[in-house]
Amino acid sequence: MSEVIRVPFEQMEREFSRILGSIGFEAEPNRHCARLFVENSLDGVYSHGVNRFPRFVQYVKGGYIRVNAKPEIRHRAGAIEQWDGCLGPGPLNALFATKRAIDLSKESGIGCVALFNTNHWMRGGHYAWKAAKAGFIFIGWTNTTANMPAWGAVDCRLGNNPFVLGMPFKDEAIVLDMAMSQFSYGSLESYQLTSMPLPVYGGYNKDGVLTVNAADILESRRALPIGYWKGSGLALLLDVLAVVLSGGMSTSQISQRTVESALSQVFITIDISQLSNHHTIQESVNDIINDLHGSISADEKQKILYPGERVLRTRIENLKNGIPVDQTIWQDIQRL
Amino acid sequence: MSEVIRVPFEQMEREFSRILGSIGFEAEPNRHCARLFVENSLDGVYSHGVNRFPRFVQYVKGGYIRVNAKPEIRHRAGAIEQWDGCLGPGPLNALFATKRAIDLSKESGIGCVALFNTNHWMRGGHYAWKAAKAGFIFIGWTNTTANMPAWGAVDCRLGNNPFVLGMPFKDEAIVLDMAMSQFSYGSLESYQLTSMPLPVYGGYNKDGVLTVNAADILESRRALPIGYWKGSGLALLLDVLAVVLSGGMSTSQISQRTVESALSQVFITIDISQLSNHHTIQESVNDIINDLHGSISADEKQKILYPGERVLRTRIENLKNGIPVDQTIWQDIQRL
Repeated sequence: MSEVIRVPFEQMEREFSRILGSIGFEAEPNRHCARLFVENSLDGVYSHGVNRFPRFVQYVKGGYIRVNAKPEIRHRAGAIEQWDGCLGPGPLNALFATKRAIDLSKESGIGCVALFNTNHWMRGGHYAWKAAKAGFIFIGWTNTTANMPAWGAVDCRLGNNPFVLGMPFKDEAIVLDMAMSQFSYGSLESYQLTSMPLPVYGGYNKDGVLTVNAADILESRRALPIGYWKGSGLALLLDVLAVVLSGGMSTSQISQRTVESALSQVFITIDISQLSNHHTIQESVNDIINDLHGSISADEKQKILYPGERVLRTRIENLKNGIPVDQTIWQDIQRL
Repeated sequence: MSEVIRVPFEQMEREFSRILGSIGFEAEPNRHCARLFVENSLDGVYSHGVNRFPRFVQYVKGGYIRVNAKPEIRHRAGAIEQWDGCLGPGPLNALFATKRAIDLSKESGIGCVALFNTNHWMRGGHYAWKAAKAGFIFIGWTNTTANMPAWGAVDCRLGNNPFVLGMPFKDEAIVLDMAMSQFSYGSLESYQLTSMPLPVYGGYNKDGVLTVNAADILESRRALPIGYWKGSGLALLLDVLAVVLSGGMSTSQISQRTVESALSQVFITIDISQLSNHHTIQESVNDIINDLHGSISADEKQKILYPGERVLRTRIENLKNGIPVDQTIWQDIQRL
């Protein structure tokens, strides 16, 4: 691995924006898209921020992502809407769907937007943070190409289908953004590079034995679902529900395409300002978090954190010191 | 352990009904409640069916469950309603909330009922099967008393907060009903009795080492969340959302009560008949299940199943041969 450098937020945003402009993004989509890739990086999700940006550009150039396509409504049933993502940029479609779900939940308390024919949303947590900071609960998920065997199986037929929950908290949010595999392929590759063992089992080796060796899992392609049979079942159901709600493609169908594309996604938001208890919600959540923070830690140097708490720390650090990027990756981006 | 006997469905239902009548259940609630406990047993969920029935009766006798209390509406915001369970029987409140969510989703495509001050719903999957067989997607969860440490902690501050998803499939359903702990305490106790090792790590022993020894986990009370940090985060968020949506008690507050009571629960249903693709939904789901069934199994004798598939087999077997019950438990029930 080459040296890690720190790139300031504004510089990274300008660079992304220049490149997006050069591949045909109009002004407003360009601004939203560049901002999203920088914010994901700022929050420490480099795998779906700066490190993923070159592949995003490549997919646009390859025609897999239709650069200025806008989502089109296909059907409305009360507080549910079904939209065609028209193979547009996944992050922009997802931002749109989040806003649209928020509008529906302003009308009906709860709103649901299902999106088909969309592309990789990068980091699901982004939309949860956005919704939560606007005052809304967020429940969302996406399907993916097949990248994980079902429990008991050896061949990949399930997606790792990230499931995302968000809740307003103080001026920020509690956000859980979890794929159904114990470790992402990106994460397994990082462990492989450093030859460090995984902290817990991450999958099977080619002899069918559970292992903490990332290289062995990358070889067998048998990544482990979280909670074994449980995460396997949840991954299946999330695919089923995304397909049913959106009318779009399943993990099985997506896997037959040249690249991961034409995904199905669900965005549910809830307007907590309309609840009878809205004046005491923040106090209730604060009590729960205080109780969690009062946990006795197995390692006294490690405080017990809520989902999203570490993100906030990373955000502050990266805003101050710049966003860490592998120098080679940054040079490649500058040449795009 | 004493001998296991097989009790026919109708006999078990009559027995439950007799006992519920004797502790004050009126005719209709009696019928629904007896039926629910038998159906849970028929489906193989004995821990929240016949084996749990004596404790349910004990809670009624102790006044923790108010036998003829009915849920009361407190607030409506569009397609969301907040109901007070009035500490009534958990299964009846949950059946009511499921029906009410279905009515809301008939109006608005999607409906959400949040219930506070309710009691243990026994088996969450029961409501998913009911909603799915009526043609609705079901998304529901409950909080519980604290019974699991957060990831990295040694003391129990999280509930194992079961999360439930249901989807109509053929004349039955795909139902995922999963607690956030890798194994329930009931399951750990069963393994302890037989001295069999758990199939995968279930928690820590008192020295802080991951173990497959159920007795050691029962001693340390350090059950493992599914997916380690992921299930820990999901358990927290499910508690937060149940409390926010219902305005009810949190796991932390419930844990201060004498017995597990005054829970918070969420029931979301979606009317798939209103979706644009409703004519092709069953075909889409069938394709996904066929693909799953085509998985190459690590053990050729084990077919890869969808969540709920094994339940159907157990149901057919138990309907034919009677419901298996530990003879001592059945004798205790007959003496109630």
